[in-house]
Amino acid sequence: MEEYVQEIELEGHIIDSLILPKVLDTIMDLGGDFEILDIKVGKRKTDTSYARILVKASSKELLQHILQELHKLGANIPQVASVDLKPAPKDCVLPDDFYSTTNHRTFIYLNGELIEVENIKMDGVIVVDPKRKKAYCRTIREIKKGDLVVVGNRGILVKPEERPRHYTIFNFMESNVSSERPNYNIIRYVAEEIYNVKRNGKKIVVVAGPAVVHTGASEDLATMIREGFVDVLFAGNALAVHDIEYQLFGTSLGMDLKTGRTTRFGHRNHLRAINEVMKAGSIENLVKSGKLKSGIMYECIKNKTPFVLAGSIRDDGPLPEVITDVVEAQKEMRKHLKNCGLVLILATMLHGIATGNLLPSYVKTVCVDINPAVITKLIDRGTAHAVGIVSDVGLFLKALVKELKLLTSSIH
Amino acid sequence: MEEYVQEIELEGHIIDSLILPKVLDTIMDLGGDFEILDIKVGKRKTDTSYARILVKASSKELLQHILQELHKLGANIPQVASVDLKPAPKDCVLPDDFYSTTNHRTFIYLNGELIEVENIKMDGVIVVDPKRKKAYCRTIREIKKGDLVVVGNRGILVKPEERPRHYTIFNFMESNVSSERPNYNIIRYVAEEIYNVKRNGKKIVVVAGPAVVHTGASEDLATMIREGFVDVLFAGNALAVHDIEYQLFGTSLGMDLKTGRTTRFGHRNHLRAINEVMKAGSIENLVKSGKLKSGIMYECIKNKTPFVLAGSIRDDGPLPEVITDVVEAQKEMRKHLKNCGLVLILATMLHGIATGNLLPSYVKTVCVDINPAVITKLIDRGTAHAVGIVSDVGLFLKALVKELKLLTSSIH
Amino acid sequence: MEEYVQEIELEGHIIDSLILPKVLDTIMDLGGDFEILDIKVGKRKTDTSYARILVKASSKELLQHILQELHKLGANIPQVASVDLKPAPKDCVLPDDFYSTTNHRTFIYLNGELIEVENIKMDGVIVVDPKRKKAYCRTIREIKKGDLVVVGNRGILVKPEERPRHYTIFNFMESNVSSERPNYNIIRYVAEEIYNVKRNGKKIVVVAGPAVVHTGASEDLATMIREGFVDVLFAGNALAVHDIEYQLFGTSLGMDLKTGRTTRFGHRNHLRAINEVMKAGSIENLVKSGKLKSGIMYECIKNKTPFVLAGSIRDDGPLPEVITDVVEAQKEMRKHLKNCGLVLILATMLHGIATGNLLPSYVKTVCVDINPAVITKLIDRGTAHAVGIVSDVGLFLKALVKELKLLTSSIH
Amino acid sequence: MEEYVQEIELEGHIIDSLILPKVLDTIMDLGGDFEILDIKVGKRKTDTSYARILVKASSKELLQHILQELHKLGANIPQVASVDLKPAPKDCVLPDDFYSTTNHRTFIYLNGELIEVENIKMDGVIVVDPKRKKAYCRTIREIKKGDLVVVGNRGILVKPEERPRHYTIFNFMESNVSSERPNYNIIRYVAEEIYNVKRNGKKIVVVAGPAVVHTGASEDLATMIREGFVDVLFAGNALAVHDIEYQLFGTSLGMDLKTGRTTRFGHRNHLRAINEVMKAGSIENLVKSGKLKSGIMYECIKNKTPFVLAGSIRDDGPLPEVITDVVEAQKEMRKHLKNCGLVLILATMLHGIATGNLLPSYVKTVCVDINPAVITKLIDRGTAHAVGIVSDVGLFLKALVKELKLLTSSIH
Repeated sequence: MEEYVQEIELEGHIIDSLILPKVLDTIMDLGGDFEILDIKVGKRKTDTSYARILVKASSKELLQHILQELHKLGANIPQVASVDLKPAPKDCVLPDDFYSTTNHRTFIYLNGELIEVENIKMDGVIVVDPKRKKAYCRTIREIKKGDLVVVGNRGILVKPEERPRHYTIFNFMESNVSSERPNYNIIRYVAEEIYNVKRNGKKIVVVAGPAVVHTGASEDLATMIREGFVDVLFAGNALAVHDIEYQLFGTSLGMDLKTGRTTRFGHRNHLRAINEVMKAGSIENLVKSGKLKSGIMYECIKNKTPFVLAGSIRDDGPLPEVITDVVEAQKEMRKHLKNCGLVLILATMLHGIATGNLLPSYVKTVCVDINPAVITKLIDRGTAHAVGIVSDVGLFLKALVKELKLLTSSIH
Repeated sequence: MEEYVQEIELEGHIIDSLILPKVLDTIMDLGGDFEILDIKVGKRKTDTSYARILVKASSKELLQHILQELHKLGANIPQVASVDLKPAPKDCVLPDDFYSTTNHRTFIYLNGELIEVENIKMDGVIVVDPKRKKAYCRTIREIKKGDLVVVGNRGILVKPEERPRHYTIFNFMESNVSSERPNYNIIRYVAEEIYNVKRNGKKIVVVAGPAVVHTGASEDLATMIREGFVDVLFAGNALAVHDIEYQLFGTSLGMDLKTGRTTRFGHRNHLRAINEVMKAGSIENLVKSGKLKSGIMYECIKNKTPFVLAGSIRDDGPLPEVITDVVEAQKEMRKHLKNCGLVLILATMLHGIATGNLLPSYVKTVCVDINPAVITKLIDRGTAHAVGIVSDVGLFLKALVKELKLLTSSIH
Repeated sequence: MEEYVQEIELEGHIIDSLILPKVLDTIMDLGGDFEILDIKVGKRKTDTSYARILVKASSKELLQHILQELHKLGANIPQVASVDLKPAPKDCVLPDDFYSTTNHRTFIYLNGELIEVENIKMDGVIVVDPKRKKAYCRTIREIKKGDLVVVGNRGILVKPEERPRHYTIFNFMESNVSSERPNYNIIRYVAEEIYNVKRNGKKIVVVAGPAVVHTGASEDLATMIREGFVDVLFAGNALAVHDIEYQLFGTSLGMDLKTGRTTRFGHRNHLRAINEVMKAGSIENLVKSGKLKSGIMYECIKNKTPFVLAGSIRDDGPLPEVITDVVEAQKEMRKHLKNCGLVLILATMLHGIATGNLLPSYVKTVCVDINPAVITKLIDRGTAHAVGIVSDVGLFLKALVKELKLLTSSIH
Repeated sequence: MEEYVQEIELEGHIIDSLILPKVLDTIMDLGGDFEILDIKVGKRKTDTSYARILVKASSKELLQHILQELHKLGANIPQVASVDLKPAPKDCVLPDDFYSTTNHRTFIYLNGELIEVENIKMDGVIVVDPKRKKAYCRTIREIKKGDLVVVGNRGILVKPEERPRHYTIFNFMESNVSSERPNYNIIRYVAEEIYNVKRNGKKIVVVAGPAVVHTGASEDLATMIREGFVDVLFAGNALAVHDIEYQLFGTSLGMDLKTGRTTRFGHRNHLRAINEVMKAGSIENLVKSGKLKSGIMYECIKNKTPFVLAGSIRDDGPLPEVITDVVEAQKEMRKHLKNCGLVLILATMLHGIATGNLLPSYVKTVCVDINPAVITKLIDRGTAHAVGIVSDVGLFLKALVKELKLLTSSIH
């Protein structure tokens, strides 16, 4: 059910004078609901008390009706005033006093109406199209001269995601990231979450670093793609090159993945893999030509699973499919994050942080890394449903794939 | 085959004058063998050259014979002089200028004979019993007034372990510890090593930290003990307490290991587990009484696998079996390390370093930890056969047990 | 001012019926104070509301008087019932259902009186002496047969430390440990805290690992001791040995601290330092003999600053002053923690955790370590005033000493 | 003095038949020099011996003359054959069997002449211009159809940098990265190295991550730029944005750097800083307009110190000066690395690895990071003169600037 909400404030002798119970009764009597966000009770008869209440209704009309009644009871209804808008003075330039977004679900009031900001992300700004009654979260580079940008704090409603009350991996763990957890059992819950997100018609986005290949888990990620558990893959040039090197020559940066041994002359294989793609013209052509027959990139192309390979200054090559302009790459990533239900970040700080920057706080996030400090950085961004797993990504993926298969077979 | 060795030096126009080839021929002709340790060739006719050669023979007598012949060819045979000995002035006090041992295989010359130092470890001293022609590595606390202690550097032969030329996990990996390795395949090699060490009649010593329980791997370590892959267990009070807490109450420090969730009032379980052991009088009694029916400590007691629980100042309790005096605990650990072929260090820096301090360099060492810095500290002690695996110890043990079972069933 | 407190509960139509404001007025009118711990307001007229209130008074008598009045107003005053006590069945054995302590300030009700538990620490139990009206926190090893131990949860009041509202280093920082903080400025606040704790007549306990010497900071810690900023030093054998090695021979584990270079034959210096102490009979004798003229241990002995050197199984030697029995060492440490105002933990996980286990939650804790995971482990124990600094301990101590000197000179 | 070198091999009864001494004499008699790279002496009269010798001469002509004489003595002179060349079949495509470069100084033989490969880096290829007798190291993206690319291994001479024999910070430290070093003293040596590199007319390149600002060291880096100790600055968008945010608003990502406290509404400052630059049109304009008056970017612009801001997908904004195309950014970085004598990498893995990929092995490298694993990754690339310092970058830079000032004043 869609929900329309408004925060109100009560101040004064609201307890002694029985205003508080009257307000609550009114809301309930009219068919609304409420949540007490904050309550402070005055210490002495002469002190005033204070309550901040979120009023909820199932339609805009009902919400408006309730608010009118509460107003009569003396409730202070802040922010019913519309947001303030100013035009952008130039392309890529914001009016001073612009409002900077969080990654929480955000609404604006515009002429008495509550409009959700689309495509919310952290550190963006809100551009409003008053005619179409639409509000968009934009980056500074997307701003065009004349865009109507929200300024100040008026008329904005931010709704942090509530932590779920029932048991999920996203709230059962103590807040701190720890390497001393029963990961084997936790992986089972991750598998279930992935399964449920898919069943609910949301997308699974996997963000993978090159360690996935180095740790010998490329077959496992390839299996996840083939079995339909990956809707989009975000990675860099290195993941693709190492994957292709491994498929063509059995090594990853010259290390034999069967033995962990560095092979003689093996370091050439890295550049040889790049050259094979260059000869074919693209990864896709290499698959079509029959030369690349397995692996992560192969499965993406065979199963038409979209992928974004974002460039970085560490890249060798890079491969033709790599988007070398970072602003373009961000745009492409953001496009694919729509309707995303769960992000699985596998051993990559750069791509993980980049993805985190683009995500609303209500998207579930699972981070796997051997370094707890990386996980702390990745999940510490106001995400409501984040779980960090300090583990070897190779052993993690092997166990995850096993659990996903068990789940699938137990259901079919 | 036992091998007797002596280093010799040649200096002068040994190449021009054909002394070098004559020396080498003589050694081979008399049935010995040699290794050229160092060779420097003079730049000009007038410059002298230099060679350092290790002469090897299958008996003391043969070695003496060869050395006599080489002496005639002008070879300088250093260190045939006996070691210098001085009596310890007091209990626990060394003569000044004592020789401080390395962890490499060490021999002393005593009246023309080469005697291996028994029980070698790092940072010990050598005490000689000339009558019984024996040499022992001792710690300073073990020194008794009047003990004959080796002083200076004369008459000592240190033989660092040669790195094996053929392929093993102990030499195939680049020197640096890395979290980006195909651990799944490396675990297979670890399993093979364990299997081979057992077959060769050497002991496997497992040194385990409490994370083994926290990460949900106590069943796996218990299985290894039951299946006979552990000859001695070194651990602290915490491992035993967490293991028993988990077996009795399903939690580890109050965390439910099935879900990773902290249970309400669960923190009491820690002290309850200790109290159960205290009531029984010992872990052994708790097993005998039928109250402790599974887990790591249970399997140790059932299978009569010796264990050393060494105390630390972090301990709660500690349990009756814990050796609370650290000097006593070290002695007990060292006793159990005799004939040890492989040490498996699982997620413990304190007990791992303590064990490393007591080990000769030729014992194989496998270290598993989530923190690469811990592994670097543990394996960086001149050990010839050490491998560090950066991994989640829970997933590691699960995979290791699987591989050990495959090996066992494939062989039977 | 000493404060006496009691939690009460109100339930029912406490807002509609104006009971809540009456209760609050009564408390204030009688000269008490209160804090609303929890308030839940019923949604409908027919729903009941609930409030949990902490009543505060300056004397036991006043508290009792207020509670009697509130009782008449219908307040539910829980836990006025005395604690339940059972005798310990044997030495070192607890009655089942014992109460396991937290590290927060804890009180018990005994025959209508509120008694603070002395020497509170985590995971202890409470032993009551009803005649002397005293309650003590004890470890299981300290329990004697017949001791009256608190069982169940009745009659216990736990008061977590409130986070201070004003600005201190202990509450200004985000919860997560981070390596990206302006440590230079934070060190200034640490210096001020140390200064203030001293001025308030509380003790500063420094817990130091051997890295203090390795990183070249032994002079700085020595200065802190000499200048009176350290009241007790907790450390292990290694700190003392490395400090003495450095003072006598200029190296630390054989590394020349002026250059960071490993010196030839330097590894002997470690055992030489131990032998010098053994010859003298003790560290104190080595100072008295004039051989040890500077450094951390020297300053402790010269300034009669107490120190506890607790043994561990890693120890070489250990030195005569080291307490090799860990249970004895814990007792000694706990003795010195009385009246401690601030603990400074410098690069040691073992001794840091051991100290943390013994500390009440209201003692200020500053942890410095290069590894964020160590800090997370150390400060994540319900401590109200803890700050973690991810830094090189050598550079940290140098900067801290500079700030302490500035403070001292600016005040004198 | 320029040095021309050639490796030769001797095999057979070279010791018995006195060929080895004759070869060495010949080289010395003709005015050349040599280095014995490898020598293996046959065990029996019938076994052959082997020597690999590097012949050195002060001119190409002399080298050729010596080699001719040695050839007569039976020396095997490998690789005098020219390199094999094949044209690139397409833009960005290499001939199969291309030679993949290391980062060591590399020469090719071309028609009897030894030519140094310009601009050497790891994982590049060698393109030869036979007419101009030039060889260049190129990346695959730089290859144009028809470029003559070296294939196979023939005719290539790789000269790994020799480790210096005298004492420098780059060789005095044990190989492993450790957090337990006397960094304060090591910083003094780093300051001296920087001083000497500058005096020798080589460039200092500083590669800096945003932690430089977060840890409160922007003033220190600004000072280094102002005092002329930085010739080029490599960084990302974040460093510039945080620096400008700090200069304009006193915060870094909203954290007050004086106190380490997160300021209310401070998170807006990040985007405000970007917007200020966007309004001005560029960082340079912001300086010219007088709005940006201090800090890292200010000093770069005031002192005309070149900087490369390379884009990454994490970037907010990014600022106009940021090169958003990563291939362009790499090119720009590589251009600035010519004549670089020392690279100082400050708390950045991404930019550090990118720079390392572009560097010849003989450039001195100093890496500072709080995470030892990052340093291991950064310096473990065959660099001859690399030193890793595990430290808080804020305290490091403060101490470095102090030492640089002491050096400067002591010399003037």
